[in-house]
Amino acid sequence: MFMHNKELLFPVNVKGPNPAFAAAVLEQFGGANGELKACLQYFAHSFTTKDPVIRDLLLDISTEEISHLEMVGECITQLMGGTDVDPNVMGSGEQTMRQEGATMGNANGYLNQIINQNSTVQKSVYLGGHGPDFIDSSGTPFTGNYINTVGDLMADLQSDLAAELRARKVYEELHRHVTDPGAREMFDFLVQREEAHALLFKEAIERVADMQGGGFEKSFGDKQYSKLYPELSMGGSASQMFRSDDARIITGPFTGDPDTDTFGGASPPMQ
Amino acid sequence: MFMHNKELLFPVNVKGPNPAFAAAVLEQFGGANGELKACLQYFAHSFTTKDPVIRDLLLDISTEEISHLEMVGECITQLMGGTDVDPNVMGSGEQTMRQEGATMGNANGYLNQIINQNSTVQKSVYLGGHGPDFIDSSGTPFTGNYINTVGDLMADLQSDLAAELRARKVYEELHRHVTDPGAREMFDFLVQREEAHALLFKEAIERVADMQGGGFEKSFGDKQYSKLYPELSMGGSASQMFRSDDARIITGPFTGDPDTDTFGGASPPMQ
Amino acid sequence: MFMHNKELLFPVNVKGPNPAFAAAVLEQFGGANGELKACLQYFAHSFTTKDPVIRDLLLDISTEEISHLEMVGECITQLMGGTDVDPNVMGSGEQTMRQEGATMGNANGYLNQIINQNSTVQKSVYLGGHGPDFIDSSGTPFTGNYINTVGDLMADLQSDLAAELRARKVYEELHRHVTDPGAREMFDFLVQREEAHALLFKEAIERVADMQGGGFEKSFGDKQYSKLYPELSMGGSASQMFRSDDARIITGPFTGDPDTDTFGGASPPMQ
Amino acid sequence: MFMHNKELLFPVNVKGPNPAFAAAVLEQFGGANGELKACLQYFAHSFTTKDPVIRDLLLDISTEEISHLEMVGECITQLMGGTDVDPNVMGSGEQTMRQEGATMGNANGYLNQIINQNSTVQKSVYLGGHGPDFIDSSGTPFTGNYINTVGDLMADLQSDLAAELRARKVYEELHRHVTDPGAREMFDFLVQREEAHALLFKEAIERVADMQGGGFEKSFGDKQYSKLYPELSMGGSASQMFRSDDARIITGPFTGDPDTDTFGGASPPMQ
Amino acid sequence: MFMHNKELLFPVNVKGPNPAFAAAVLEQFGGANGELKACLQYFAHSFTTKDPVIRDLLLDISTEEISHLEMVGECITQLMGGTDVDPNVMGSGEQTMRQEGATMGNANGYLNQIINQNSTVQKSVYLGGHGPDFIDSSGTPFTGNYINTVGDLMADLQSDLAAELRARKVYEELHRHVTDPGAREMFDFLVQREEAHALLFKEAIERVADMQGGGFEKSFGDKQYSKLYPELSMGGSASQMFRSDDARIITGPFTGDPDTDTFGGASPPMQ
Amino acid sequence: MFMHNKELLFPVNVKGPNPAFAAAVLEQFGGANGELKACLQYFAHSFTTKDPVIRDLLLDISTEEISHLEMVGECITQLMGGTDVDPNVMGSGEQTMRQEGATMGNANGYLNQIINQNSTVQKSVYLGGHGPDFIDSSGTPFTGNYINTVGDLMADLQSDLAAELRARKVYEELHRHVTDPGAREMFDFLVQREEAHALLFKEAIERVADMQGGGFEKSFGDKQYSKLYPELSMGGSASQMFRSDDARIITGPFTGDPDTDTFGGASPPMQ
Repeated sequence: MFMHNKELLFPVNVKGPNPAFAAAVLEQFGGANGELKACLQYFAHSFTTKDPVIRDLLLDISTEEISHLEMVGECITQLMGGTDVDPNVMGSGEQTMRQEGATMGNANGYLNQIINQNSTVQKSVYLGGHGPDFIDSSGTPFTGNYINTVGDLMADLQSDLAAELRARKVYEELHRHVTDPGAREMFDFLVQREEAHALLFKEAIERVADMQGGGFEKSFGDKQYSKLYPELSMGGSASQMFRSDDARIITGPFTGDPDTDTFGGASPPMQ
Repeated sequence: MFMHNKELLFPVNVKGPNPAFAAAVLEQFGGANGELKACLQYFAHSFTTKDPVIRDLLLDISTEEISHLEMVGECITQLMGGTDVDPNVMGSGEQTMRQEGATMGNANGYLNQIINQNSTVQKSVYLGGHGPDFIDSSGTPFTGNYINTVGDLMADLQSDLAAELRARKVYEELHRHVTDPGAREMFDFLVQREEAHALLFKEAIERVADMQGGGFEKSFGDKQYSKLYPELSMGGSASQMFRSDDARIITGPFTGDPDTDTFGGASPPMQ
Repeated sequence: MFMHNKELLFPVNVKGPNPAFAAAVLEQFGGANGELKACLQYFAHSFTTKDPVIRDLLLDISTEEISHLEMVGECITQLMGGTDVDPNVMGSGEQTMRQEGATMGNANGYLNQIINQNSTVQKSVYLGGHGPDFIDSSGTPFTGNYINTVGDLMADLQSDLAAELRARKVYEELHRHVTDPGAREMFDFLVQREEAHALLFKEAIERVADMQGGGFEKSFGDKQYSKLYPELSMGGSASQMFRSDDARIITGPFTGDPDTDTFGGASPPMQ
Repeated sequence: MFMHNKELLFPVNVKGPNPAFAAAVLEQFGGANGELKACLQYFAHSFTTKDPVIRDLLLDISTEEISHLEMVGECITQLMGGTDVDPNVMGSGEQTMRQEGATMGNANGYLNQIINQNSTVQKSVYLGGHGPDFIDSSGTPFTGNYINTVGDLMADLQSDLAAELRARKVYEELHRHVTDPGAREMFDFLVQREEAHALLFKEAIERVADMQGGGFEKSFGDKQYSKLYPELSMGGSASQMFRSDDARIITGPFTGDPDTDTFGGASPPMQ
Repeated sequence: MFMHNKELLFPVNVKGPNPAFAAAVLEQFGGANGELKACLQYFAHSFTTKDPVIRDLLLDISTEEISHLEMVGECITQLMGGTDVDPNVMGSGEQTMRQEGATMGNANGYLNQIINQNSTVQKSVYLGGHGPDFIDSSGTPFTGNYINTVGDLMADLQSDLAAELRARKVYEELHRHVTDPGAREMFDFLVQREEAHALLFKEAIERVADMQGGGFEKSFGDKQYSKLYPELSMGGSASQMFRSDDARIITGPFTGDPDTDTFGGASPPMQ
Repeated sequence: MFMHNKELLFPVNVKGPNPAFAAAVLEQFGGANGELKACLQYFAHSFTTKDPVIRDLLLDISTEEISHLEMVGECITQLMGGTDVDPNVMGSGEQTMRQEGATMGNANGYLNQIINQNSTVQKSVYLGGHGPDFIDSSGTPFTGNYINTVGDLMADLQSDLAAELRARKVYEELHRHVTDPGAREMFDFLVQREEAHALLFKEAIERVADMQGGGFEKSFGDKQYSKLYPELSMGGSASQMFRSDDARIITGPFTGDPDTDTFGGASPPMQ
């Protein structure tokens, strides 16, 4: 079970409203490599993981990711300029920041100026009421398709490692393009945390490889058709670089007859 | 921020594996009225809610919903028959239940029998590794489109109330059709909790109505075009039932001229 | 069966072309709270509604919503600047308004200026040929996922009421941000009609509550687990506000044993 | 504007409940080639069509399609076995047909038997309350992506013609596989109507071709790169069949130099 | 099987970076009428086509379309300004064009300027690393729903013809709005190729019509309900234009009794 | 550019029709870890990869994957029982296998029996005309969301490695559950090829790590917040296992003050 504390995991203090920045940050709220995706992916993996230590690791990190999601949502809300002041008055129009010391000022004017230009700002203002919605930076809804899971521990952990590296890259790009100092402070923290997670998943992969006696690569590549290099795109040199010494190059159709296929590519079948 | 405790909010003890039941229960894991949807909807609303009491309520209930999600996921995993026994052996084939006392027995045979028939079981076995995935009972992925949010407190709370009533109905149907006693015990608990949430949202709506001096209906219906009953589907008597005494019936195009339109329907314009 | 009259339900007279405004208005053509969603939701509910009066009401309102959809589509077409003049010449380039008195003038220049900035305008121009498409303001396609239906009359009507309140809010925001007087006149009319529908659905809910002897809340909350307040997000006071006198506060896992669970929260289990 | 008459365009009298058939028929309610798609596609085209006769044709057929949608929805509702008898009792369980003379009988038993097997039945029962939902036969939600529109009259009408042929094929397959006589009578009627529409769109295409002085093909194919046959898949004879006398065969990269490219394929560049 | 040659089918030489243009061109990479859709649609049709000549034609054109996809992807990459210079340095920041002679220069400055305005640029920069992604111009992901296939040769070929006409229209619009000369040269080439494909599909349709003894229209329209014109949208004259001499006009519900229905519309049933 | 040879990369000889198996195999045609996803992901990565050797590798493997897609499509078509015999006769009903020696026999009877049970078979028969469609085993359409790409070479290659491991697992499950010997022979071949690809991507990752002077892990984890272990899920021992010696454990909110935060978790802030 989960419990919640209204303090954020790490404080978020945006300096001023900027809906276009808010739209960009949505990428990590409801986007393909965002915090919800990460949280749910590790959560899903925890159900099918028998090893108690790795299961614990998955839940530790999943729980941190949902806390990141909350930080990102708070960042977006502040960048949006906050919601209507008075909950009793629908559409009161006036906008202020929830964080002290930062007021929207001409936020409405700013909104009216930007609103014609950035379609995600349009949608966020009309639909989300100036708060975060489960969409990405271009307004595409979050989808369960983002979550990579097949129930094989090694494959799932490799998917988790890759997810962390992608998330880190997106934060790096946000740090490059979103110039609000408060938002950048948050991105900096989150880049570091995704790095921490990537290293933990790497250790978990090594642990599983040890348990399996050498990693997934041990049983790989020792069958007939797994030794051949696919030289199917002409005009490059990857086959020289990556083909192991005993691997043959194949360029055309296999016959399905193992005796013939071991010589695959000897005579290029595609004329 | 969130914290997690590996104890479930309420214990889940499925009596035996049944992948087709598991497929049905996916409806509440990744479906349109499921726990993830509920959790994320109230979470999103919390960012744009200024009233601290209602904001607290939203986060209390959202946190309970993610704990429900975990219960539902555990239920699905048990119904799927559990994952491969040995994390070191990819596809070891043998299946056991994580819960003591319940063994898969002929689960593999069962899987092979059912697998051709229920396409969601097919997908869950191949893709999800016998664990929960963020899809619904027909294999459709979860989507952020399920979440209803416009940033208006009354509209959002009414959406939350409606969400609870729909979720309750789905659990009721699951209770009717999924016969595993352990699963039914869980559905029974969850029906009660959704009822509790529905009542809390109803109180919150009343609180907002009080703050607004009478609810949304107070300011509604006092403008010219909001008084007219749309008699556009012929062959019924709803207009007699629902039309207030001073409301006119309109059946055809408005002219856009208020003086004429107040007599809308006097002469049926559609012949 | 349906019949159509080429007159609009209410006249639409946009004053000048403005593709960015058109993109915004798409929200109510193909968006999550738009007219197509409303029309189809009530239409779907009508099939499973046995009460003839409420069935008639659902069809009356559904039929009005599709007439609203047509108005919104006409508004978008006018704001887009109209289509190619001459159907014989593919891509003739020149643009005029279908409504008399409003000419596109420099619409092409305007289009070329705005086209790089608003991605929904890009898509609408390239894909939709300057007409409405079933997408929302950010270019996301309409989806059946927008439609809330579970086949329980009370739950469905509450969903319909919530849908009207959300639609009303979106029109209010459009009225605030889209400054074309002709479009605003239409929004004003539609806000009033959504209010009328909201009130009608409220009456229908009361009718069903009467038939059920007190509303859904009557049978709610009288079971063991439906009385407890979920105090799971720390740092707020909602439990004081919303907890009824005899309701206990629960903060940690239930045991599943009713005798113990009635004391839920007596000793906080989560440390 | 639209008006509705509670009589169906053509009577629908299903002989007995059969949820699996209902799931199949959903294909034409919310599926890729279904009635909603057809209705919305022609409706969208009507906004950008300047020719008043073709605009009228589009609206005549669109209006018929929404009436088809209603018939298909009624057919599904009857095949589902109808909804709960008593609107006052949520989940009353007993099932009857709305059509006189056809009673569900053991429909609940039937539902419980089929429910584990067909995942769309699962979803329809849990979500849709035994009524139609905007999904296809495999539970995939309807999407605006089904609608083909680019705002060019010839391209749009060709898309409409193709849509009618696809819809006709699906009804033909339903007629082959869904054996309920009442449903088959409806499919037979709808096949005939889609044929009627296909012929009307064919006439409209000829009318536009005449207006354009000979059809889209007139200005086609008279430019340098539009004369060449793409011989890119080896092992067939289509180039002999379809290459016009003066068309060259191209098999490899163009140089971008018109003088050279007219000899494209003279020396096959891909070895 | 497929083989690849790193030379493009037709050279692509964009003159300068312009991310907003890149976002527009994404329409033909991952959009509803783009190259991937065309390639996959004809590829899918080839599996169910028994006629060897038409099967060859489908694969010839499908193979050309994937080569078009590659050109469009290269165009987008060049317009994005290219990727990081040094693959060893994640986020090196500096940008150059892969094509000689065209340098990004102030591309980063340009990116930072445009990035707040066009949400698809935002997403492409953050997610796609300045390369093409399988989304359309508004950031909507590619979907298999774009592919029209029912396994009936005539219906499928008509769908293919319509697809080519739509693709041609989109390239024409891109040619009108994207002013980079290198991109326009590519659009010009692709318009011509889509024309060539449209003509080939037209010939294939004629071939099938010949095989079927006169085209799909031969067996159409000779049944009772396929002769009637649907006069359901009032206020137009299409029925005069398109109704054949012996066709009756129907305006209201059929009785289902053939004798009566042949007189459909004699007495207008909808009042 | 691409070229195609009508010979398959590896021969596919299904022994008998079995539509339910066909539905299962769709997972690798249009599913989340299928061949189209793999092909398009590596293809997308090739555009943003500057290193010519790795770019060549990506295109070699991408080209092999589209050839796999063709094999999988052929396998599905054979399992579906083939299309109508005579392309001139729409819906001729009779079914034969394209592969010699295998005839459908009672395939129609079989189809009618299975058709009510597996909703993906329903959809494939009605929509796809007994051929492959770009959907997965539960009928969900293929989506560009399956493709993981961020334009960072290390992150992208790790995503590619993970994709191969997931694809391998799905083929392993298909091999376990789909018993047709011809299909199993194909799965066996494809498992081996995905292993070959996994090993090649692993080598490519090492090459990039060498170029970067030690892999992504070198620059990771040396910043303040990247050293801390997130002990947020109570009841496990992962922190003992994975926490490096100098890493602190954090359990509660950070202050944002680096001096305080290095002591994170010293006093557990969440009570």
